Amino acid sequence: MKEKGKLVRPIWLDAAADIVKVIDQRKLPHDLVIMELKSVDQVIDAIREMVVRGAPLIGVTGAYGVFVGLKTNTEKASDDSWITGESKKIAAARPTAVNLSWAVEKTVAAVMAEKDPARRVDVARRTACEIAEEEVENSRRIGQHGLTLIEDLVRKNPGRPVNILTHCNAGSLACVEFGTATAPIYAAFENGLPVHVWVDETRPLNQGARLTAWELGKAGVPHTVITDNAGGHIMQHGQVDMVIVGTDRTTYTGDVANKIGTYLKALAAVDNGIPFYVALPSSTFDWTIRDGVSDIPIEERDPDEVRYMPGVTHSRETLLVPEDSPAANFAFDVTPARLVTGFITERGVCGANEDDIRRLFPEKI
Amino acid sequence: MKEKGKLVRPIWLDAAADIVKVIDQRKLPHDLVIMELKSVDQVIDAIREMVVRGAPLIGVTGAYGVFVGLKTNTEKASDDSWITGESKKIAAARPTAVNLSWAVEKTVAAVMAEKDPARRVDVARRTACEIAEEEVENSRRIGQHGLTLIEDLVRKNPGRPVNILTHCNAGSLACVEFGTATAPIYAAFENGLPVHVWVDETRPLNQGARLTAWELGKAGVPHTVITDNAGGHIMQHGQVDMVIVGTDRTTYTGDVANKIGTYLKALAAVDNGIPFYVALPSSTFDWTIRDGVSDIPIEERDPDEVRYMPGVTHSRETLLVPEDSPAANFAFDVTPARLVTGFITERGVCGANEDDIRRLFPEKI
Repeated sequence: MKEKGKLVRPIWLDAAADIVKVIDQRKLPHDLVIMELKSVDQVIDAIREMVVRGAPLIGVTGAYGVFVGLKTNTEKASDDSWITGESKKIAAARPTAVNLSWAVEKTVAAVMAEKDPARRVDVARRTACEIAEEEVENSRRIGQHGLTLIEDLVRKNPGRPVNILTHCNAGSLACVEFGTATAPIYAAFENGLPVHVWVDETRPLNQGARLTAWELGKAGVPHTVITDNAGGHIMQHGQVDMVIVGTDRTTYTGDVANKIGTYLKALAAVDNGIPFYVALPSSTFDWTIRDGVSDIPIEERDPDEVRYMPGVTHSRETLLVPEDSPAANFAFDVTPARLVTGFITERGVCGANEDDIRRLFPEKI
Repeated sequence: MKEKGKLVRPIWLDAAADIVKVIDQRKLPHDLVIMELKSVDQVIDAIREMVVRGAPLIGVTGAYGVFVGLKTNTEKASDDSWITGESKKIAAARPTAVNLSWAVEKTVAAVMAEKDPARRVDVARRTACEIAEEEVENSRRIGQHGLTLIEDLVRKNPGRPVNILTHCNAGSLACVEFGTATAPIYAAFENGLPVHVWVDETRPLNQGARLTAWELGKAGVPHTVITDNAGGHIMQHGQVDMVIVGTDRTTYTGDVANKIGTYLKALAAVDNGIPFYVALPSSTFDWTIRDGVSDIPIEERDPDEVRYMPGVTHSRETLLVPEDSPAANFAFDVTPARLVTGFITERGVCGANEDDIRRLFPEKI
């Protein structure tokens, strides 16, 4: 991700100061605020309050959290049970993304393998940086693999852009670079392929309207913000060629936990014969869970996130999206008869088919 | 709908002043503002700007619009082509709801049948009032027919409330009294049946969070506001027994045009074996259209409705729902493997099933 020509990541180690820094994603797109993570509590707060969010990024932040804990508590470097306890607190900051515990455990394992306490902070620093670079490389490869899928669609639909719908933000901001769902899109765009992205607003925290729109805009990728309600309608009308989303945890049987609302888009994609892809690094697979719907823990957050809307207030209204991001606004959609159980009319209940309707209103048709 | 013990309708003829009055629904739930409709232009603006909205209410407003036109242009009462022209302008104020043209045409037909120009304004007034009362009676009957469906669910699930999900506002505010989707809910509540309503926020204009939550709260009906993204998840987890929505236009073959996002909820209901009912008066059927998805005109509104959020600002946040309405906030949902076309991973693309995943990551399981 570039900001004024410079590569910007959502998390990095400031090597000179030896301090972990992150973009405060709650403030985007209206303000670009950098925050320093100087204690385990700050790391946990940053994850929980969604200063950082997105499965790969949460993992990397958790790994840096182990480093921050050791750096600020040098006297505890030999205390394995303290390290384990602090790490468990970090891993529990949010429940759904499996990358968090994966990255924390990987860092702790490397630390524990180092028997010289004086060198453990260096091991933690190096391991966290390696995990970050590993996720960059994963994203790069995801981009290349997904690129071939987009190239196929370009060949199938010559002379018009390939329309890709995405939900929430599985972009550079959710990872370290390139993103997961966005990696194939950026790869296609850099290869000169015509792409256009439908960006789901993604209530309640508007990660689509705020973050995906912001980073696509920075990269110059054509995109349009839509409400979460709109995806089904545009799929029915041939305006979506492909869906790509990220995931917070995917079972080894293929069930995909992702930002609330993803399931509805998958249903609509299947109903309209549109490919629905999930882009993920292997750190997001949960190799222990078989049934995602019953066994993946689903975080329930503060209802005030639904009741209130984050944004910048202009008199009585609240701007949700970047100043330059266009939006689309179809006001209705159509539910085909086959999905309707029945009509409740003033004459009674009838099936959603011509025969039943005709029987109830014989004078009409 | 009661306000301080008095019956309040979203539209009424103030008999003493002979003036049509409406609740300005854009201002709810934070302010209850009454607006007078004193010219055809004001009627058209009120429909277009969604001072009034909801298919039956738009129809009734259109009918009163014919009356307002004749009342404010007494010299035109004998000019059939002027009456036809003004009526067409009213009928074109919004494109999707078929009740509008139905009610305007019904009023104009009654006016045209009256050959004495001096009596035409009285005919228009009477016809509009009759259409309003007809919609009240339709809603009452819809409530009774839907009540039996809820009674069945109460018998099936003794000892717990019946959970009903609704989208947008198909309530008293969308009709004249009782509503369409809400009519069975109010009937059940008044009969002492345990009901709880999941209220979809309904972006971009938040008719669920603003209007349905407001009128259910006034009536004392237990309800919870959710984001539009959340319905699929709560259906997967047994928290929805029934969906009831309204409709702006329904073909005689059963295809249902309703507020954008309805289609996604129907897909999720079918996928989870949950009944999905549409409540409507016969004035909402379109007896001429066979294929709803291809032939019902879908209004596209100002994208700024997506970009900005209506509400009352509290510092940098915007309250969306009534002060007393609870909200729920599940942060993720799960898309079952069967809906996923494939995974794009750093090792390549694979099918969403254990065998394909195992093949790509043989060392993991």
